[in-house]
Amino acid sequence: MVRTQKRRIIAAEGTNMTPTEEMNGSGNLMDFLDEPIPDVGTYEDFHTIDWLREKSRDTDRHRKITSKSKESIWEFIKSLLDAWSGWVVMLLIGLLSGTLAGVIDLAVDWMTDLKEGVCLSAFWYSHEQCCWTSNETTFDDRDKCPQWQKWSELMTGHTQGGGAYVLNYFLYVLWALFFSFLAVSLVRVFAPYACGSGIPEIKTILSGFIIRGYLGKWTLLIKTVTLVLAVSSGLSLGKEGPLVHVACCCGNLFSSLFSKYSKNEGKRREVLSAAAAAGVSVAFGAPIGGVLFSLEEVSYYFPLKTLWRSFFAALVAAFTLRSINPFGNSRLVLFYVEYHTPWYMAELVPFILLGVFGGLWGTLFIRGNIAWCRRRKTTWLGRYPVLEVMAVTAITAILAFPNPYTRRSTSELISELFNDCGALESSQLCDYVNDPNMTRPVDDIPDRPAGAGVYAALWQLALALVFKIVITIFTFGMKIPSGLFIPSMAVGAIAGRIVGIAVEQMAYHHHDWIIFKNWCRPGADCVTPGLYAMVGAAACLGGVTRMTVSLVVIMFELTGGLEYIVPLMAAAVTSKWVADAFGKEGIYEAHIQLNGYPFLDVKDEFTHRTLATDVMRPRRGEPPLAVLTQEGTTVEDVEALIKDTDYNGFPVVVSRESERLIGFVQRRDLTLAIKSARQKQDGVVSNSVVYFTEDAPQLPASNPQPLKLRRILNLSPFTVTDHTPMETVVDIFRKLGLRQCLTCGLPFTWACCLRLLGIITKKDVLRHMAQMMNQDPESIMFN
Amino acid sequence: MVRTQKRRIIAAEGTNMTPTEEMNGSGNLMDFLDEPIPDVGTYEDFHTIDWLREKSRDTDRHRKITSKSKESIWEFIKSLLDAWSGWVVMLLIGLLSGTLAGVIDLAVDWMTDLKEGVCLSAFWYSHEQCCWTSNETTFDDRDKCPQWQKWSELMTGHTQGGGAYVLNYFLYVLWALFFSFLAVSLVRVFAPYACGSGIPEIKTILSGFIIRGYLGKWTLLIKTVTLVLAVSSGLSLGKEGPLVHVACCCGNLFSSLFSKYSKNEGKRREVLSAAAAAGVSVAFGAPIGGVLFSLEEVSYYFPLKTLWRSFFAALVAAFTLRSINPFGNSRLVLFYVEYHTPWYMAELVPFILLGVFGGLWGTLFIRGNIAWCRRRKTTWLGRYPVLEVMAVTAITAILAFPNPYTRRSTSELISELFNDCGALESSQLCDYVNDPNMTRPVDDIPDRPAGAGVYAALWQLALALVFKIVITIFTFGMKIPSGLFIPSMAVGAIAGRIVGIAVEQMAYHHHDWIIFKNWCRPGADCVTPGLYAMVGAAACLGGVTRMTVSLVVIMFELTGGLEYIVPLMAAAVTSKWVADAFGKEGIYEAHIQLNGYPFLDVKDEFTHRTLATDVMRPRRGEPPLAVLTQEGTTVEDVEALIKDTDYNGFPVVVSRESERLIGFVQRRDLTLAIKSARQKQDGVVSNSVVYFTEDAPQLPASNPQPLKLRRILNLSPFTVTDHTPMETVVDIFRKLGLRQCLTCGLPFTWACCLRLLGIITKKDVLRHMAQMMNQDPESIMFN
Repeated sequence: MVRTQKRRIIAAEGTNMTPTEEMNGSGNLMDFLDEPIPDVGTYEDFHTIDWLREKSRDTDRHRKITSKSKESIWEFIKSLLDAWSGWVVMLLIGLLSGTLAGVIDLAVDWMTDLKEGVCLSAFWYSHEQCCWTSNETTFDDRDKCPQWQKWSELMTGHTQGGGAYVLNYFLYVLWALFFSFLAVSLVRVFAPYACGSGIPEIKTILSGFIIRGYLGKWTLLIKTVTLVLAVSSGLSLGKEGPLVHVACCCGNLFSSLFSKYSKNEGKRREVLSAAAAAGVSVAFGAPIGGVLFSLEEVSYYFPLKTLWRSFFAALVAAFTLRSINPFGNSRLVLFYVEYHTPWYMAELVPFILLGVFGGLWGTLFIRGNIAWCRRRKTTWLGRYPVLEVMAVTAITAILAFPNPYTRRSTSELISELFNDCGALESSQLCDYVNDPNMTRPVDDIPDRPAGAGVYAALWQLALALVFKIVITIFTFGMKIPSGLFIPSMAVGAIAGRIVGIAVEQMAYHHHDWIIFKNWCRPGADCVTPGLYAMVGAAACLGGVTRMTVSLVVIMFELTGGLEYIVPLMAAAVTSKWVADAFGKEGIYEAHIQLNGYPFLDVKDEFTHRTLATDVMRPRRGEPPLAVLTQEGTTVEDVEALIKDTDYNGFPVVVSRESERLIGFVQRRDLTLAIKSARQKQDGVVSNSVVYFTEDAPQLPASNPQPLKLRRILNLSPFTVTDHTPMETVVDIFRKLGLRQCLTCGLPFTWACCLRLLGIITKKDVLRHMAQMMNQDPESIMFN
Repeated sequence: MVRTQKRRIIAAEGTNMTPTEEMNGSGNLMDFLDEPIPDVGTYEDFHTIDWLREKSRDTDRHRKITSKSKESIWEFIKSLLDAWSGWVVMLLIGLLSGTLAGVIDLAVDWMTDLKEGVCLSAFWYSHEQCCWTSNETTFDDRDKCPQWQKWSELMTGHTQGGGAYVLNYFLYVLWALFFSFLAVSLVRVFAPYACGSGIPEIKTILSGFIIRGYLGKWTLLIKTVTLVLAVSSGLSLGKEGPLVHVACCCGNLFSSLFSKYSKNEGKRREVLSAAAAAGVSVAFGAPIGGVLFSLEEVSYYFPLKTLWRSFFAALVAAFTLRSINPFGNSRLVLFYVEYHTPWYMAELVPFILLGVFGGLWGTLFIRGNIAWCRRRKTTWLGRYPVLEVMAVTAITAILAFPNPYTRRSTSELISELFNDCGALESSQLCDYVNDPNMTRPVDDIPDRPAGAGVYAALWQLALALVFKIVITIFTFGMKIPSGLFIPSMAVGAIAGRIVGIAVEQMAYHHHDWIIFKNWCRPGADCVTPGLYAMVGAAACLGGVTRMTVSLVVIMFELTGGLEYIVPLMAAAVTSKWVADAFGKEGIYEAHIQLNGYPFLDVKDEFTHRTLATDVMRPRRGEPPLAVLTQEGTTVEDVEALIKDTDYNGFPVVVSRESERLIGFVQRRDLTLAIKSARQKQDGVVSNSVVYFTEDAPQLPASNPQPLKLRRILNLSPFTVTDHTPMETVVDIFRKLGLRQCLTCGLPFTWACCLRLLGIITKKDVLRHMAQMMNQDPESIMFN
């Protein structure tokens, strides 16, 4: 018995038919010979994909290739190429995104410095590169060299004095306005999707949603260019988030080269998940952190196979970036730090306080930013994006210039704040009173009293903190590429450094206090303010994005030692808890909600006690479900149904009276099939009968030729019974990636069993969830 | 309309009833007041759990706690405690597994050295600790000190000469036999589950299977003790795999303290996933690698919440172990290495060759080991486990003693092979011919010609390689705790070091060859044989376990630099590809299959073109499905049905003729409910009528009291239509963690629509998959 069945299955496999085809084929051979209808099985813009269908299409494709590969050498080679295409795509993504990241870094460096001055030996050199090539520079004056001239020096010959200052100030603002004007204009004219950080949209796309052009070639090009302009303009934004978008555009670009990925929306998303990992990998130089970020924050379905490939793409990207060496230090990471002092148990208190600060900042930022973005969406503000960008740039530049900590680029600022004060550090932050008799080695400088420079720096940092907090809220979400990793980290790093210096000075002046007595003797190096800055940065980033493991791993890759993981983790946990207490969603989820994307978050727990029957359509009092019958409908009727309704699919039933389900047909497939039949098939006219059964209905000879559509019918639509708890339904939608699900009734009445009662779409599920959380269900806009 | 529905839902939520209860309650209040039947909803030993049911039970519990928490302060505190219990459990797991790992390390160290000699100053000191405390030791003779005496010295006063050698040899073998005898006896008498590495079983348990006692207290105790004995006996096995089992036992122990975890098999598995991460974290000192190992290799469902907690547990465990400091070097990692030379592109060729070797070794090991284990299972061999262990121990000890590379513990061997030859290295492997005029700094020793010691070492290593390859195949799977990480790594490290020395000498003697010309000038330090050993170890481990990302990350954490990730990755990828070409499954999957556990691998792709109707039971010609009717069956009938069949559950239909489904009832629940009713409910006798409807059937007054069982009825059993492709069914089983799924028919005939046609259980799915892969379907033994 078992053997017979086996043979039957193998026989079926030999024929290269899908189960549906096989069944159809047995009934009507002609139908099997028909060529496929073009575009059937694709999706419309702003629609949800059906993961189950994509997966089964990929399996069909794979089966076809496997069975063909035994036929000839050429087919075998083709099957090998197909198997390898995943790795090739990853390699290409890694190479291109690494290169782009390097180019962006170099361009940003140059253009940021262009706001201050120009290199006389070669105008395309940044300040640092200019003075590198100069031989006259000593180590102490690394950034002073004759080739580099400030604008005032070049134009008037003065470097000092009020006039020069005003001229430099004026030109700084002018350059900033010029850059941001260029950026916003390019975005508006060529690629409106290039604005923002892109991560909310990428999350939505990866969860199975179509936004055509969001990851297109134009977006890639314009986003790369405008990202450089936006960062160079000195606005309070970072390039890390947009780099993820850029990498995903690369992923989309290369996946369109291979039909395996371009023709399957599910497989394409595997590539995009890996590309997101590559993006974070080059943004921070943290390949493992990038993979975990993609896994934790961005991706929806992450098969283990993809994990391995993502890691490969992330590594290739990181090494490509390193071989370009934009920071000129052969370091992979963005902020390389090395601390020489361990941390002590008692320091956990300030670390946890920084975590609380990070959580509060996260809440403030999300609430403020969302309120402002909502205002932008709903009021006149949204109609003048260029003006808004120019205004914010002007305010930023005018307020930023006088303060040395806001004038420079934010990543330089963070880098300085993270750094430990070595003996050679010339920064104002390291202006401690030195003991003239000190003969300790360089990496073991004891705590010292703060000098005037440190006190001045503290004031300036405090002002910078307030400025950054306020301006970032208004900057994120404007119509230019803008990431929030760097501004968030800057806020945290400033706060952390201030706390760090305070603790250090307290420990120095009061080392007889009980809390310091045990671990901080005089002359010991016990507090590292740079570590506080790093912990603060992690806390603030965590508060805004609600990342957890990936955040800690990225930070771990920056420091390269497990030593400091505990402080980072304590701060990240605290920050997440504090922020979660005020609202569960991170900034990306908040923006997804603001835009009404249909995103079913895997992290949300649905705990309400509703049943499928409460959610399904039609509700009581609504018109009955729009269904098709398996035979007897004419082409005209179907077209009318398509025109009158906006449903994305129709259940097919035996007859309108019995409502017995035989399958489900997608609206798009139906439209395309009828269009194609009208063009190609002779005799199909408006009053041709459409039938979904295996055999054509018996019709009088005078009738026009009927149209068989069984091929586009999904014979195994997903069904749940109407008493299934919604938590199960939500789980099924999430895990299987359904687009819709039919609801059938169990026979509580003595009517026919398992009658088709209704339908639940992803939109219905999301609206129900919004309603349960006392939110406006109409905010979910797409299907 | 929307508002009304909302209010209705909220009203329902206020009553603390599950949907089922709510519905039942409305019909019959008495039933709602009934106390719950004990043990309903639990599982029998060697049975599969239903993840959907566990999840919905947890949501119910959570809902109850949330609504109660508003009632009083005490309930609020209880709800807080409940929310925190996850973190508490993680902390406890981390602390205990870190401590146990430290204790095991110390004990193994001492007992391994006990085979050679004893410390006179304190017999509980290992060789290293003994000579540490000795003041007379110079740096060069770290391991020679008067306090440490070999057995021959202690007993006869001789250290040199044939007699002393024979005596030491004899005692070495004797101790080994004694240790292994103790180990196997303890396992046999007290905890048969303590044998093996435990990872295959843990994988199965995490995928949703019950093996009572596998993670129990006795297993924990005995496994810890016997692991020390087994490793000390010098057998070719490691402690890394069993440490994962030990950590999971800790996880099970602590999860039984909290009802949230102890009463829910799904939640308990979340804890166990995290515990597995903690186990790997302490085994290698690699917390991030541990989390990824748990994610990639061990866990089945890994919610993101668990990822964060796993990381916490892994970190706590790693820091606990470090504070115990068993290796005496304050290092977190097992094999700490630091290389000073970068690798060159051309070296990728030998690295990839090592990858090929690793893949071949993996295939050889898996095939050989499985063949031997199958023989043990099926022949007389399995009846004499003690004898087998003793025989293998004797052979191992006798063959291992003469070779210095097999005599010492395997982890010491790996450690030495990984190490770069510094200036202070006294090992035989570093016996190079030194240039007397050398004045280079210590970390930049140029390549040198090999001395006699290196050539001797090469021969000994080659012999050790053959020995390890053969003996490991026979050792893994015996009735003692045995891991295969360390033996696999040893095989790879030996092969790698041999290749490394060969390349190094080739480069030294032929640096004018084209391949060396570009990167290996005379006097340069261009080849690091230790790196080759590490790459080989990664390749061999990858070939056996088929780990990918976690393998590379663990190795990355050992070296602590991204520099060497590319060689490791190249070797790991090659090894996986080569091994996969010979068979897709890793050693753990092979052992799962050998034992017939019902494990539905997430990594396997099901690509066959079968339909649900091909798999469901009953098949054509088999007796019809055993069903219950919603009323009219007596208690006696039900008991007879339970006795006559061994199905795990029964569909409940309206009547035997219509076969219209109303729900599904689990066998165990049915048994328990009837037993409890017979004990507690008066009037329930053998000919009481059992009914599953909402209202009691109308019966004559003379009839005994009927028994209402609607409460144990699952009203929303999972159904698929019989034309659903099996790949979708497999996907649903995997992603939703179903135990069984009912098959309904769509109306191809004009019979009643959606008739219940059959049932598919996880076992059926697995048997079908085995059959499709030309394996014996009867090998799947459990349900």
